Amino acid sequence: MTTTIKDSVHDYIELRPTAEALLDTEPMQRLRYVRQLSTVQLVYPAANHTRFEHSLGVYHLASRAVDQLELEDALADRLRAAALVHDVGHGPFGHQTEAAIERHLGRHHDEIGWLLAETELGTVLEERGIDPDAVAATVDGRGPLGELVSGALDVDRMDYLVRDAHHTGVPYGTIDHARLIRAFRRVDGELVIADGNVASAESALIARTLMNATVYRHHVSRIAGAMLDRASERVLADGVLEPERFARLTDEELLAALADHEPTADAASRLRNRRLYKRAAWVRREGVPERFVGLEYDRTRELEREIASVADVAPSAVILDSPGMPSSPESRARVLVDGEPRSLGDRSPLVAGLDACAREIWRLGVYAPPDRLDAVREAAADVLELEGDPEP
Amino acid sequence: MTTTIKDSVHDYIELRPTAEALLDTEPMQRLRYVRQLSTVQLVYPAANHTRFEHSLGVYHLASRAVDQLELEDALADRLRAAALVHDVGHGPFGHQTEAAIERHLGRHHDEIGWLLAETELGTVLEERGIDPDAVAATVDGRGPLGELVSGALDVDRMDYLVRDAHHTGVPYGTIDHARLIRAFRRVDGELVIADGNVASAESALIARTLMNATVYRHHVSRIAGAMLDRASERVLADGVLEPERFARLTDEELLAALADHEPTADAASRLRNRRLYKRAAWVRREGVPERFVGLEYDRTRELEREIASVADVAPSAVILDSPGMPSSPESRARVLVDGEPRSLGDRSPLVAGLDACAREIWRLGVYAPPDRLDAVREAAADVLELEGDPEP
Amino acid sequence: MTTTIKDSVHDYIELRPTAEALLDTEPMQRLRYVRQLSTVQLVYPAANHTRFEHSLGVYHLASRAVDQLELEDALADRLRAAALVHDVGHGPFGHQTEAAIERHLGRHHDEIGWLLAETELGTVLEERGIDPDAVAATVDGRGPLGELVSGALDVDRMDYLVRDAHHTGVPYGTIDHARLIRAFRRVDGELVIADGNVASAESALIARTLMNATVYRHHVSRIAGAMLDRASERVLADGVLEPERFARLTDEELLAALADHEPTADAASRLRNRRLYKRAAWVRREGVPERFVGLEYDRTRELEREIASVADVAPSAVILDSPGMPSSPESRARVLVDGEPRSLGDRSPLVAGLDACAREIWRLGVYAPPDRLDAVREAAADVLELEGDPEP
Amino acid sequence: MTTTIKDSVHDYIELRPTAEALLDTEPMQRLRYVRQLSTVQLVYPAANHTRFEHSLGVYHLASRAVDQLELEDALADRLRAAALVHDVGHGPFGHQTEAAIERHLGRHHDEIGWLLAETELGTVLEERGIDPDAVAATVDGRGPLGELVSGALDVDRMDYLVRDAHHTGVPYGTIDHARLIRAFRRVDGELVIADGNVASAESALIARTLMNATVYRHHVSRIAGAMLDRASERVLADGVLEPERFARLTDEELLAALADHEPTADAASRLRNRRLYKRAAWVRREGVPERFVGLEYDRTRELEREIASVADVAPSAVILDSPGMPSSPESRARVLVDGEPRSLGDRSPLVAGLDACAREIWRLGVYAPPDRLDAVREAAADVLELEGDPEP
Repeated sequence: MTTTIKDSVHDYIELRPTAEALLDTEPMQRLRYVRQLSTVQLVYPAANHTRFEHSLGVYHLASRAVDQLELEDALADRLRAAALVHDVGHGPFGHQTEAAIERHLGRHHDEIGWLLAETELGTVLEERGIDPDAVAATVDGRGPLGELVSGALDVDRMDYLVRDAHHTGVPYGTIDHARLIRAFRRVDGELVIADGNVASAESALIARTLMNATVYRHHVSRIAGAMLDRASERVLADGVLEPERFARLTDEELLAALADHEPTADAASRLRNRRLYKRAAWVRREGVPERFVGLEYDRTRELEREIASVADVAPSAVILDSPGMPSSPESRARVLVDGEPRSLGDRSPLVAGLDACAREIWRLGVYAPPDRLDAVREAAADVLELEGDPEP
Repeated sequence: MTTTIKDSVHDYIELRPTAEALLDTEPMQRLRYVRQLSTVQLVYPAANHTRFEHSLGVYHLASRAVDQLELEDALADRLRAAALVHDVGHGPFGHQTEAAIERHLGRHHDEIGWLLAETELGTVLEERGIDPDAVAATVDGRGPLGELVSGALDVDRMDYLVRDAHHTGVPYGTIDHARLIRAFRRVDGELVIADGNVASAESALIARTLMNATVYRHHVSRIAGAMLDRASERVLADGVLEPERFARLTDEELLAALADHEPTADAASRLRNRRLYKRAAWVRREGVPERFVGLEYDRTRELEREIASVADVAPSAVILDSPGMPSSPESRARVLVDGEPRSLGDRSPLVAGLDACAREIWRLGVYAPPDRLDAVREAAADVLELEGDPEP
Repeated sequence: MTTTIKDSVHDYIELRPTAEALLDTEPMQRLRYVRQLSTVQLVYPAANHTRFEHSLGVYHLASRAVDQLELEDALADRLRAAALVHDVGHGPFGHQTEAAIERHLGRHHDEIGWLLAETELGTVLEERGIDPDAVAATVDGRGPLGELVSGALDVDRMDYLVRDAHHTGVPYGTIDHARLIRAFRRVDGELVIADGNVASAESALIARTLMNATVYRHHVSRIAGAMLDRASERVLADGVLEPERFARLTDEELLAALADHEPTADAASRLRNRRLYKRAAWVRREGVPERFVGLEYDRTRELEREIASVADVAPSAVILDSPGMPSSPESRARVLVDGEPRSLGDRSPLVAGLDACAREIWRLGVYAPPDRLDAVREAAADVLELEGDPEP
Repeated sequence: MTTTIKDSVHDYIELRPTAEALLDTEPMQRLRYVRQLSTVQLVYPAANHTRFEHSLGVYHLASRAVDQLELEDALADRLRAAALVHDVGHGPFGHQTEAAIERHLGRHHDEIGWLLAETELGTVLEERGIDPDAVAATVDGRGPLGELVSGALDVDRMDYLVRDAHHTGVPYGTIDHARLIRAFRRVDGELVIADGNVASAESALIARTLMNATVYRHHVSRIAGAMLDRASERVLADGVLEPERFARLTDEELLAALADHEPTADAASRLRNRRLYKRAAWVRREGVPERFVGLEYDRTRELEREIASVADVAPSAVILDSPGMPSSPESRARVLVDGEPRSLGDRSPLVAGLDACAREIWRLGVYAPPDRLDAVREAAADVLELEGDPEP
């Protein structure tokens, strides 16, 4: 007996009893209040979909994949459960507080063993003969067919590309997930894409590259994310919130906590009312010295203070954002070519182009309040030895 | 010079400078945190779209309508502004706290004059030579072409039907709004639908009837709404929140406030974790004595206490929900027939059918915690003299 | 082992080997050249979808229904086969030549026994142990669960509503077929819709009513259809084409045949180049005496000659089109109410409204070449005793 | 005063009077009977959309572009007219008979000057003060802003990508045409894409590459196209049809003509009933000697005869298909980078990858009747010195 849920992307999703029981737990219900695209709604106002509905979508695709691969029951149960709970480890605003949580708890959101152990999620699994540790390993991409849930071309990615396209209105994420899942094969225990589907696999890679450029790495969302990170660090450093408690908040519980603490109240109000910092500098890869690319956190904060001092503004008025170069995990996806598994990256002449593309959209950003942009821009150009025009 | 925003429903929405300035105010930004369908997301998990994106959509359709009608600038400006701000008066969870706010403030969400007077919204309007009072009247459906924003077949309705369909995945809301707007005419100052479009106008009426049955009046959402109303009443009665403050909260700020007050903490937790009351009774119109249909609030609470007493449960363990009969405002829409304006209801043989249909989906509900259903059901059947089987 | 076909409406359609073999026959391949909506493409230029793709869609929905109902293999095979071949009996332009074929062959398009007997279709079925006669009966709505393929709420209707919406761009056909099929139950051998789905069933009825008004009965398509009927009659009466040969033509083979015969060459050219007759009269039900509603063919032709004579134009310059009142077969659909099967028409207060609605869109049409409209209008008003203004 | 037409892709299309008059001509109406994707419907059964609806779509996008660019009336009129008639020069089955027509008439489908001169199209244009020669030049990509209609990133391409996606169900064509058109600028008379839209421009290039791989160059469509070319050549060589007459046929008129001529009757029947030749050989670029890549027509036929002789089959039983390498015209699209126009190919690191990708999907094909595959394969491998396994 199955229950069905109506979804805006996959239409009807059938839930098995285990999935229903998992959904009824607090850690899963919490995901109703964590937006899938965190601060992207400040750019694309319709991007309010949540990790809850996304989790249902990933579960649905995993169920399809498990049927396609004709897996034995125990493995199928484990994969479906892992697909459903794969996001429970996310903090408020998902990826936007990931770094802060890692700094304070040393834990990545894909490590959910502790959550399964400490909450009713573990009990639900055990009652149904599903090993929580095996589920946790699967969420982390380990164990039999772990790559189905967290790998080069996993059902997580397939769902979010299509769902993010549906909710932002940006069409690039529209991949042919049904074809990809039909193309799944298991060869020597490994998940591969059947012969003749290179274009479909490439399309997922392309979709992510274009969604990165247009949605995921939009500067307004990056600015909001950086502001959130600095404010999160402050409430954690000031002991306002225990890290474990912080990690279990919802998006708006975090906003409320920031609003309640004087040193972060301004950031909270700016985020809430979309009165964000703006770009003082926005520089392509070629204008940034190698040593300032992909900065560590401590070094970033040090440079922020240095820029603030040169610009003669308050330290909190400068945010530096120098991300690492984006990687293309999809290029490691395995495709069958004349019956032999190969890496998509080896087969597809597109992959190199897409890597260059990703490099092309990379930017170092320096953000400041609108009335401090000029001073901060000059100071940043000086301190970071930026070349070319740093203006956005 | 216009700015554009990408929308999931209307693709690109062009914003004039006035609209941009209005959007940048706190009352408008707040709508990012008020869900369009409040508790419906507990049934349709993808229904997380907000009154903010809906407001943009209504503005977009009003802009189209204003162009279609070739209105003079001043009226066009007023209508567009009214369309954009029409929902700022909503409290947290929109319609679900409407009754509580009316009881405590004596104000309906369409009365927004005070908001325009007290917030930056008014300033923005005045700076651009738009009379805030005229805008407030328009939002309330009064003044020239007020029916475009709040009337029998307004752009508000057109947007929400399509948007709710997109986000729930339920197709019934898919109306042909582009055709309806092209059919707009202004005859003797009145908004009418051009000849030959009765079917299009009916389709909007039908869409709402079917969305009512499937989405808007789904029992799970009604239960959550009733729980929210009782808890809201309690925090207001206990003086935990000033009514004016209450009315300006976001959805999740209200949940947080309920969680912080001991007498409402259980309700907050049930709402948050979807551990809702269930239907103890669910009775068609014909099984309910006339005098128990469409009950006043005070009478409802009295009957709840009576049922609780008969059932020997705590008063808070019984919620009675006896709504009025739904009306069909669309039937008053004006359509041209052979050049003469007539009411859609007079022209369309469907309207009577749809009214009967609406009556058909009406239910009286009595809700209780899952472990008290039998006792409450018996007591309710007794107190309310219900006929037939009250079980859902 | 299944093959899959990509469809614009249902995405991937899986074909079992029997379906593949049936598709490979000439009678099925012919359907690639018969448009689903015949002359509607003259109004909605994108309506070029064919009975071939529609047949695949009906097969797909039947396969889903058969799984939902958990039918025994033999019945499942029969129903799937019947769904796939259900349209092979259609002549060129489908319903637009139906009457001509019935006059000359005394055969309705749902009677396909002769086709199964005479073509490879029958062989394919027999080789797989499927009785062609049983399949033919099913297509005609007879035998076990015949109503699934041809009944009050069959998969044929479900597919065409959604497909016609997709291809015309008119949204009204968008029904929730997935929900309806999930709601299928078999009670005492009869196909019924499960409790709680009255709104879904009504939505199909509504969809057809609105599609009738907007698409299927659009006057331009009706005019083209009437011209096609008269020209078809002429080539048949003149012995240019044997009726059996006529019935097996494709749309464009018929146009070519009409172009090659001098008396029908003008009609062929008008149809091809969209230089159609226009409405000389277009009269609501209340303006037409009872005895001129739903006219027999011979009587129609007699009246056409009479009107032509009064108007002093060539007999071929007058086309009279007085269809019967549309019926609502969906109202006979069986729905479960509290576990008891009832007719949808008895349960749904909408049905009467929709019947009235259908009556409302009925029109008697008289069509003539653009330069003969006035003369024909006057003559028709006279001969048919039309009341009110007969102008469109 | 404008008329509107409902389209499945762009919803409502507004037609100006000139467009209406052009549509009413025979050359435009003929496009209702020429499929946009010719033989692709043999693979994707829903791909029955026509060059007529596509022409409307291109007109619609050109109208939008012309508004965006705020062009003077005369140029706007010319561009809109050119967009609407740009496909009138296509023969039956569009690109599939292009080579045959060029061999016999020495004319490409983009050369439509003769058609404007000889048909009512020219009269319609002249009556409205639009120079037919200038329109013909624009269709050929020449003259002011000719690149809007036929260029590196023209509205033709934008429409067909989205339309082909809608009708095949393959999602890759879904580009953001609204954004691209909003990004149009005219700089020194040249059409360029505004700063910050490289990703959008790339997406069009990507879309075409993926649609090539999945749809446009699908082997079944290529086989049918090659069969059509050989049969077309035969009826032309045998003098059954004058080349000028041939070039003006519709798809199904050509099929009928082929069926009527004994030497091509088998091909016609195979095409009609989808009993096509199959792949005897299907070889990647690296397995084919340079001199056999991109073969001239006469050389191709010579090699076919040679292979047939070696294989000891009838000459008509071998079809050789060695296309040239696909090019990426989009890479020449002009994009603004920091205010300076640059070629997309110079700016986008993706372009090289996509070129390699196009090379990757290239195949030499040898096709033969299903019962002659082995003999033809061996002979082809021998004659063409193919390396590796030539089997598909």
